[in-house]
Amino acid sequence: MNRTNYTIDARNKVKRVPDRGHYDQETVYAILDAGFLCHTSFSIEGQPFIIPTLYGREGNTLYIHGANTSRMIQHLDKGVDMALAVTHVDGMVLARSAFHHSMNYRSVVVFGTAKRVRDEEKEHALFILSEQLLKGRWEEARKPYAKELKATTVLAVEIEQASAKIRTGGPKDEQADYDLDIWAGVVPLHLGCLPPVADELLKAGVEIPASVLALKK
Amino acid sequence: MNRTNYTIDARNKVKRVPDRGHYDQETVYAILDAGFLCHTSFSIEGQPFIIPTLYGREGNTLYIHGANTSRMIQHLDKGVDMALAVTHVDGMVLARSAFHHSMNYRSVVVFGTAKRVRDEEKEHALFILSEQLLKGRWEEARKPYAKELKATTVLAVEIEQASAKIRTGGPKDEQADYDLDIWAGVVPLHLGCLPPVADELLKAGVEIPASVLALKK
Repeated sequence: MNRTNYTIDARNKVKRVPDRGHYDQETVYAILDAGFLCHTSFSIEGQPFIIPTLYGREGNTLYIHGANTSRMIQHLDKGVDMALAVTHVDGMVLARSAFHHSMNYRSVVVFGTAKRVRDEEKEHALFILSEQLLKGRWEEARKPYAKELKATTVLAVEIEQASAKIRTGGPKDEQADYDLDIWAGVVPLHLGCLPPVADELLKAGVEIPASVLALKK
Repeated sequence: MNRTNYTIDARNKVKRVPDRGHYDQETVYAILDAGFLCHTSFSIEGQPFIIPTLYGREGNTLYIHGANTSRMIQHLDKGVDMALAVTHVDGMVLARSAFHHSMNYRSVVVFGTAKRVRDEEKEHALFILSEQLLKGRWEEARKPYAKELKATTVLAVEIEQASAKIRTGGPKDEQADYDLDIWAGVVPLHLGCLPPVADELLKAGVEIPASVLALKK
């Protein structure tokens, strides 16, 4: 695995609880690979915007996509500065004191600029996005027509700088509070799947595919 | 319920798939109330930032908090423009064609500026934040000491403008694709709780509290 570190400076340095900060690609990539939804942050004429969107990682590049008419796509396509975050909520940390309540989480903030993916690389980038959402699904589905590819813009964000922030473990209380008759611990949280619901118009006899069967509950 | 609409203009108008856009407080509040984690977007000297953080809603106000030394808190405390998003991922929408794959989701984007909560209102705002994370927990926990309140800054973001975007339901495929032998449907997703894990140092005999017992799996 790649232990390369991203450059650390004021932009990506984890200021609060610096022990929770990580700057190596292995840690950053692992958090990115565990998700599929990010939020993008960008500014138009000084006004901050934020948009949730899907992403896919390949090497040090994140792909995002949207309709050609999307504001986010049209703006980021100009190569402006942007930030992007992926956050996994892993648990509620319930301390004895209200003050020491916390969350367990794994988050990454990425800084970079977007570049438009060229036509001949677009289908590959969409494959990466699709695999990130549901591995194996691309091969099962009808591939895009030329006009569908044309209606979609894919942007590649090279990760210039990133930081990861991770909290794990139980609550940390003030020494005197450990004697209180107050329950403390962690309620683990996770994004889980429920059983798949077939489309009403599903053709008779078509079975649940391997990509869906492989999902963990 | 309040059917008041937020003003709609270029800043908050849902451009892509406008049918999925909603601007009424009832819809916006319901999505905000179903979560506890938001991402804030703001810009420092032209550089966009994005930070995941907890929030609590009271009326048309969102509270966020952090240590006095937090960059996000220090910057937003200046009353600069910010945006904030809350996104619930409700399902993977698997169409027959790769192109028509989608997500079911409920998201809100809020625009506003932050104001520092005055000392005498801080504890109440923290109560709102705590209730948003886990209803009833505040009453069970040891209340903040004055020095703990002093170390925390709470900001109030009055919701100036907002938009909600919602997708529900199954895949929509091209007419010709309904005959394909490809499975289509929805894999519902949800943020679920696992059984609570007591702190190793939990005092003997202290039982799991009502706030945790009330959580849905």
